[in-house]
Order: sequence, then C-alpha cells, then structure tokens
Amino acid sequence: MPMPLTELSAVVESLRTVLPGRVETDPDLLARYTTDRSGHRSSGGPLVAVHPHSIEDVQAVCRIACAARVPIVSRGAGTGLAGGAIAGPGEIVMSFRDMDQVLEVSEVNRLAVVQPGILNGQLNAVLAEHGLWWAPDPASKDISTVGGNVAMNAGGLLCAKYGVTREAVLALKVVLADGTLLSVGHRTVKGVTGYDLCALMIGSEGTLGIIVECTLKLQPLPAGDAVTIGAFFETLDDAVSAVTETTRRGHVPAIMELMDRRTLDFVRQFTGQDIAPGAGAYVLVQCDGASAADTAERIAAIAQSSGGTVEITTDPDESRRLVDFRRGAFPALEAMGTLLVEDIAVPRDQMGAAFAAIRRIEDKHGVVIPTTCHAGDGNLHPTFVFTGDDVPERVWDAAAEIFTTALQLGGTLTGEHGIGLLKRRWLGDELGDAQYDLQRRIKHVFDPDNILNPGKVFA
Amino acid sequence: MPMPLTELSAVVESLRTVLPGRVETDPDLLARYTTDRSGHRSSGGPLVAVHPHSIEDVQAVCRIACAARVPIVSRGAGTGLAGGAIAGPGEIVMSFRDMDQVLEVSEVNRLAVVQPGILNGQLNAVLAEHGLWWAPDPASKDISTVGGNVAMNAGGLLCAKYGVTREAVLALKVVLADGTLLSVGHRTVKGVTGYDLCALMIGSEGTLGIIVECTLKLQPLPAGDAVTIGAFFETLDDAVSAVTETTRRGHVPAIMELMDRRTLDFVRQFTGQDIAPGAGAYVLVQCDGASAADTAERIAAIAQSSGGTVEITTDPDESRRLVDFRRGAFPALEAMGTLLVEDIAVPRDQMGAAFAAIRRIEDKHGVVIPTTCHAGDGNLHPTFVFTGDDVPERVWDAAAEIFTTALQLGGTLTGEHGIGLLKRRWLGDELGDAQYDLQRRIKHVFDPDNILNPGKVFA
Ligand SMILES: Cc1cc2nc3c(=O)[nH]c(=O)nc-3n(C[C@H](O)[C@H](O)[C@H](O)COP(=O)(O)OP(=O)(O)OC[C@H]3O[C@@H](n4cnc5c(N)ncnc54)[C@H](O)[C@@H]3O)c2cc1C
Ligand SMILES: Cc1cc2nc3c(=O)[nH]c(=O)nc-3n(C[C@H](O)[C@H](O)[C@H](O)COP(=O)(O)OP(=O)(O)OC[C@H]3O[C@@H](n4cnc5c(N)ncnc54)[C@H](O)[C@@H]3O)c2cc1C
Repeated sequence: MPMPLTELSAVVESLRTVLPGRVETDPDLLARYTTDRSGHRSSGGPLVAVHPHSIEDVQAVCRIACAARVPIVSRGAGTGLAGGAIAGPGEIVMSFRDMDQVLEVSEVNRLAVVQPGILNGQLNAVLAEHGLWWAPDPASKDISTVGGNVAMNAGGLLCAKYGVTREAVLALKVVLADGTLLSVGHRTVKGVTGYDLCALMIGSEGTLGIIVECTLKLQPLPAGDAVTIGAFFETLDDAVSAVTETTRRGHVPAIMELMDRRTLDFVRQFTGQDIAPGAGAYVLVQCDGASAADTAERIAAIAQSSGGTVEITTDPDESRRLVDFRRGAFPALEAMGTLLVEDIAVPRDQMGAAFAAIRRIEDKHGVVIPTTCHAGDGNLHPTFVFTGDDVPERVWDAAAEIFTTALQLGGTLTGEHGIGLLKRRWLGDELGDAQYDLQRRIKHVFDPDNILNPGKVFA
Repeated sequence: MPMPLTELSAVVESLRTVLPGRVETDPDLLARYTTDRSGHRSSGGPLVAVHPHSIEDVQAVCRIACAARVPIVSRGAGTGLAGGAIAGPGEIVMSFRDMDQVLEVSEVNRLAVVQPGILNGQLNAVLAEHGLWWAPDPASKDISTVGGNVAMNAGGLLCAKYGVTREAVLALKVVLADGTLLSVGHRTVKGVTGYDLCALMIGSEGTLGIIVECTLKLQPLPAGDAVTIGAFFETLDDAVSAVTETTRRGHVPAIMELMDRRTLDFVRQFTGQDIAPGAGAYVLVQCDGASAADTAERIAAIAQSSGGTVEITTDPDESRRLVDFRRGAFPALEAMGTLLVEDIAVPRDQMGAAFAAIRRIEDKHGVVIPTTCHAGDGNLHPTFVFTGDDVPERVWDAAAEIFTTALQLGGTLTGEHGIGLLKRRWLGDELGDAQYDLQRRIKHVFDPDNILNPGKVFA
C-alpha cells in the first residue's frame, strides 16, 4: 500500500532535521539511483537520497524509516551487476560515498578498520604503504566500494588463490532496520562465540542490515616478481584441458583466466588488431610468491603440451600486456551494445560441459554469448550483447537455460555477482522450497517490516 | 515439563522400528554419553543412543523426536572441550561413529565428500594417497570427527596459515529438527546464491541442524621439506616480542606456538627431563611450502635477536622432536589432575597484555594457570589443573576474570573450543543483549521446538 504523500514529505523533513544539508531531493540528481550496472532500471526516481557521515547518522535515518516503514536501499558505488542498489519511488537511498575513511591499519594484527564507502582501490593504495594488501579484487576494484564488495561477497581474478571477500573480513558493524547497532565477527583472527553472523551478513546484498564499518583481514604483499603466462589455443577444449590439468596437478596460480573464441572476436573487432588469428581461446595465468617461477614453468609446460602457443614473462610491461588483454574483454563487449553479464559457477571438472552447453544455447536461441571464465574456480561469465535498454525476451530465455544448465552440472546461479533483481526468479530453483522458506524467515528475524532493500534477492 | 515415562518408552520403541539393532538403552553403555572432555557431566544417562547409517536414518529419528519433542544431542567422538556433546535424562544421543565413509575424492575439484563420523586423521590418510589434504588440524585430529570439527569450527596449530574449519568447507547436508534435509553451500569454489547458511551452520554446535554430509575444500599437500624452529627464551616478554615481530614483518609460518614457564614446569615434572632449565618460554615455528627455508631463516634471526636460544632444522626426526615438545604440554597437564582448558583469543598485539593479566589472576586467586598459545593467531589456552571431578569455585572465579580480560582486550571468549555448557553464562557479555536476542531468534527459525542440543550455547 503506497504511503500518503503528506506522510512521505514528513519523512523527508525528519531526515533533513537529522542530516541537515545531506538530503537530496532534486529529481535530476535522484535519477542516477534508478540504475546500477545491471542494465535494470527502476520505474522512477526514489523519494530521497541521504549521505550519512557517521554510524549515528545511519542509525538516525533507520529510526525514521522504520517508524514510517519506508524502504532503505544501501548504495556503494552502484557498480553492481545484479540490480541490488537500484531504488524506486517511495524509497530512501542510503549512499555511503561520504563515509570513506580508513580508521585504523594495524601491521601486527594484520587488519584495517574502514568505513564502507571507501573504494577498494583507494584502500589498497593506503595499505601498500604498510606492505599490506586486502585481497578481494573484483575487476571493478577501482570503482566499487569495500561495503559493496562485502555486501556482495565479491570475487575477482585472484580468488583462486586468495579466496573471496568472505575470507577477508574479520568483523563488521551493522545497523539493523530499527537502528540497532550490532558488532558481528571478531577483531581476533579466530573466534567461535555464538553463530557466525559476520559470515551471514557477507553477501546479504543489503537485505539483512546496513554495513557501517568493516574490520578487514589483510595479507602481506606477495614478495618477489610475479610470473605471467599468456597462451592461445586453437580450440576451447585444449584450453579447458590445460586449466583442468593445472588444477589436477595441485598447482595454485594467483590468476587463471580463460576467454573463448567469441570474446576474442569482440576484442579484435574493438581494438582493430588481428591478434592470434584463428585462436579459439586465450588463457592467462599469473603466479606469485616464492614458488612463482617454478610453478609458472610447470603450468607453461602443461599449456604447451595441451597445444597452446605460450608466452611466459617476468617483465612488468609485458606482463601487464598479457593481463590487459584479458581485462580488455569487458570494455570490448561494452562498446558493442548493452550487456547482460551472467555469472554461473560450476565444479571445475564441469567447465568443458558448461562451455558446450552455452554453444548449444547460442544455436537454439540465435544469440551470441561471448564467455570469459575465472578458470581457477569454474566461474563463467556468459555475456549477452544487445541494443537498447531492455533485455530482449530471447536473451532472458537463453539466460534461463544457462542457469538451469549450471544447476544441472552441480553448480550455482551466481559465483560472485549476486541475485539482486536479476536472478530472484530463479533463486527458488537452486535453494529448493524448504531452504527458500528458511532464508525468508531469517530475513524476517533481521528485518521484520521488510524495509531493507525489499524486492531484492527474494521476489 | 518432563515427559511421562510411557511416552518416552513409546519413543524408544519407534526408534527401534526405524533403526533395528542400532538403538542402545543399556544404562552402562549410555553412561559414556554423560561426559565429553570438558570435565562436565550430566545429571544422569540419556534416554537412548541411536547409531544411524544413512541420512534417511537421521531423518527418521528426527521425525520421531520432533513429534514427541524429545531433545537430540548429536555426537561425534566426544572429544569436545565445551560440554556440547553431553547428554542427560530424557535425551536422544545421535552418534555418528557408524557414518564414517569417504563418498568421493575429486582431484580436479579439489574436494572430498564424507560422512560426518569419519575421524579427521582417517580422512587425511585417505587424502594423502591423492596428494591432497584437509587443512583443519585440531590437536585432537586423530580422535575427533570431521562432523565434530565442522560443528565446532575447529582450529589447530596450522590455522595461522591455512585458516580454520570454516575456510575448508564448501557445502553441507543438514537435517533440521523436523527431519527436513537441506543442502547448504556449494560444490563450486565460489557461490553467492542467497544467504550463506553453510557458514552459519559451521560452529553452531549441534543447535541449528544435524550435519549429515560434508563437502570439504582440499589443498594440495605442501611441497618440499618443512623447516622447524624451536626456541627457548628467558622471559615470556622476549618470546612475545619474537612472535609479534614475526607477524609484523609479514611472515606467515604454518605453525607458531608459545608455551609459558608454568607449562614448561609441568612438562619437566611429567617427563622427568630438565630441559632448558631456567627458560621462561618456548616458541615453536614451522614453515612449509616453497619459501620455507628463506622464511624460517628470517624468523630464526628475529628469535635470536629477541634473545632466544634457537634451533633450526629440516631433519624430520629432529623436527618431530621440536613439535612433540609442544604437543607434550596437554598430556603433561592431564597427568597432574583434572583440567579446565580455557581458550580465549585476543588481537595479536594484545598477547603480552593477556599473559600479564593471567599472571595477576593467578596471584589473586592462588591458582597456577599454565598457558599455551597459538601465537600466530593470538589464541591462548590458559589451563587449570585441579583434583576431583568438579571445577572448584575459585577456578571458575579465575576463569571468569580471564574471560572478562579477553573481552576488555578486544578479544573473544573462545577462539576454537566453543561455548557448549562451559561458557554459556558469559555468552551475553560478549554478544550484548541485542545480538544475543537475535541469535536466539535465529535458533528458533531452525529449531522452533528447541529439541536440537537444548541448553547448549544458550543457557
Ligand atoms: C566493470 C565491472 C567489473 C566487475 N567485476 C566484478 C568482479 O570481478 N567480481 C565481482 O564480484 N563483481 C564484479 N563487478 C560487480 C560489482 O562491482 C561488485 O558487485 C561490487 O562489489 C559492488 O560494489 P558497489 O560499491 O558498486 O556496490 P553497489 O552496486 O552500490 O551495491 C551492491 C549491493 O550491495 C549493497 N550495499 C552496498 N553498500 C552497502 C552497505 N554499506 N551496507 C549494506 N549493503 C550495501 C547494495 O544494497 C546492493 O545490493 C563488476 C562490475 C563492473 C561494472
Ligand atoms: C587432547 C585434545 C586436544 C584438542 N585440541 C583442539 C584443537 O587444537 N583445536 C580445537 O578446535 N579443538 C580441540 N579440541 C576439542 C575437540 O577435539 C574439538 O572441538 C572437535 O572438533 C570435537 O570433535 P568431536 O567429534 O569429538 O565432537 P563432539 O565432542 O562429539 O561434539 C562437539 C560438538 O559438536 C556437535 N556435533 C558433533 N557432531 C555433529 C554433527 N554431525 N552434526 C551436528 N553437530 C555435531 C555436538 O553436539 C557438540 O556440540 C581438543 C580436544 C582434546 C581432548
């Protein structure tokens, strides 16, 4: 039931009282909150956007929203690919871009305490001065916030070796819908007191609580030179054997990525360079740490014996070139139209089967689906390119078949991008009725009035 | 309200129908379920113990228990130090020792699927044949079950480098109180579909669901020789500086342990050997992987410049001797009386403060508190030794002060042993009222009739 306008404007007035000068209501400014990078758009601008500077500010906003039952959509940098940060009519956007301070760096405790709105890249620049590093590295690291990374349990190129965001968070401060402040997790490396609500919060996409402070687990910067391998293969199957064999033999590269023929075609078209003509796949591997050289040699040998044309280097510039070739995939695709970036994960021995299924789905639906893959962990990004703002129906049909395939192969709907609006209609297929219901009841415990990012994750 | 006896015997009869030949009611046999290794004992034997062979067996037992509202206490090997597996009158013990099969080992997927009752050591013997390894290594690994390790989120010597159990579990099958079977987590390395109920289940001490199958994340066995360092220090402060400086410099040894003067005294008394007379602390470090030799050299140099008398070796026998000296602490203490093994964790830069506080608490209460410490992660085991079965009041008083100290230092009540019965009266002190209440409500979502390990964790 929509709220009477008078009541909504009373909410805005109350917000102005607690956050003077930090309440946006200009429709032109509010329009940017109707989208993120998912391709979705809400039906209209939100009621208001607020810019808290402190935990107390967040609590004050929550109390007002809770009393009036007005939804709150937390927002980091809006780079999400699942529509989680999109806000619509009658909703409050809680933007964290003004809460971007590093509150503490401790070398002995190997932790940092930060506000949620700091960009991942900004934080890592500060940490590098201490010889430290926060490992989560979504390709969007320079443009996405730590709070957003935590809320999504972001992955990246390096998680094959260094784990996902969940492995890199010690503790969180979280404000609940009613304004209650909780500290979950521990400042210590180990701790088993009570249920692990910190892990539960990670990846909860703004639906359980609002993350207002993050205590992050850091790593020492890897020592020595990284060794980078770039390998072109004639066929995808050869490339898949190379990466599969690498894992089977127990090697743990920091990065292991795969681009398929379609993606290579888009990159060639975008750059105008006829790199590796005829190649059916590109594999990028990077090894770091003390065993880098030795591990890289072995992986290069595997790639070669799987038929790859292999380049191996420790030269920083050359290395960057090989990595940038992989990083160039997204811009190349984006330049060709609107994207729907999919994100299934399958057990590593099912990568070949997943690629084969994607080819069949292409044929059936008459679409092309360039696909990159975090091959170290079986996480594929089948991507749809189309014109216009709206996802065409046959793209949805093809995407749906990809999701079904992932589940059939023992995999998951989303390896790292989350459910948001994009995949909520398939959530029940993966969870099953009993778990779907249980998860909803957990949401209800945290947010009984359903004001935290309603409609996201759960339809 | 206790249940009428006729009803209880009807429950036992139903259990016999679904698990013929696998229902224990002999009071002498049942007596062993009244204790674990915590020093606690229930007021009397449980109603019955059942030995399921399959998930369906577990579900059948739950349905019977749920209908009659009879509590179920899951039990692995009963090595818990918090009283979590202790059962009393009117309760069903669900023992997992007959469900000890390895169902799958996949090298490419680097995972194993196992039943919960397999011993950690048994599993690792099987995995070693594949060049693989499940990292969680509680000192009890040869006598505790994987299900128990998961239910407690067990730690061990190696978690400074390899993480705790939570980092080594991909997915779980869990039976809820009413017999519903859930699959939580993912067979894939990455997956962010819905809330992370797998992480929530890990460390839940049998209070949320019954773990009936575990999909474990494996590692390749570390290559090359491990390098081991044993160092005696005159004072605890010197030893603490050495380990703190090691962490601060960014070194990541696989093992870093510390024993204080009191512990050394007990070991000398137990073994009759006058090892390192006058030494006030022993530090054990082990480095593995490709950088082992280099890292160990650097750590040895730090230990030396902190005043340590340092031995460094790659010889397997000599290495074992240095490690066994640390492993000998528990048996030495156990031989002297009944133990209450405490388990606080503090931020790594507070280890010195924690040891100092323990010394003050010793003086105040007139008890000795030998303390070992997983120094790589700030996890201390202050241990009380006394005669008789019951924990003396002044020991509880001293323990309570240690808990308070841990919280004051920014730490936690329990780094790895859990809450169980032992620490439930302090749980609220750490969680605070709001989170305590929230956790109880989560328990209620999973187990509305409170039949799963009631009275454990929450008083
Ligand atoms: C070019 C590009 C590359 C990308 N590469 C990757 C990749 O490699 N790996 C990957 O995992 N993702 C990737 N992403 C997706 C996206 O960047 C990540 O999901 C990122 O974590 C989102 O951060 P954000 O600050 O932009 O969050 P937003 O998009 O603003 O929000 C994302 C979600 O988090 C919630 N949220 C944000 N802040 C908070 C908070 N403080 N408290 C509670 N909830 C909050 C929002 O409500 C929303 O549901 C990529 C995106 C782009 C555009
Ligand atoms: C000598 C010694 C050394 C130890 N060293 C360590 C150490 O280094 N690190 C450490 O973390 N711990 C240590 N422990 C404690 C103990 O071994 C661990 O907690 C271990 O994980 C318990 O496993 P278990 O199979 O014995 O479980 P149990 O003691 O039988 O049960 C422990 C808890 O888990 C629950 N549980 C067991 N199985 C299941 C299941 N399948 N489903 C749901 N719940 C279940 C029980 O209800 C109970 O709450 C040590 C204990 C001893 C005696």
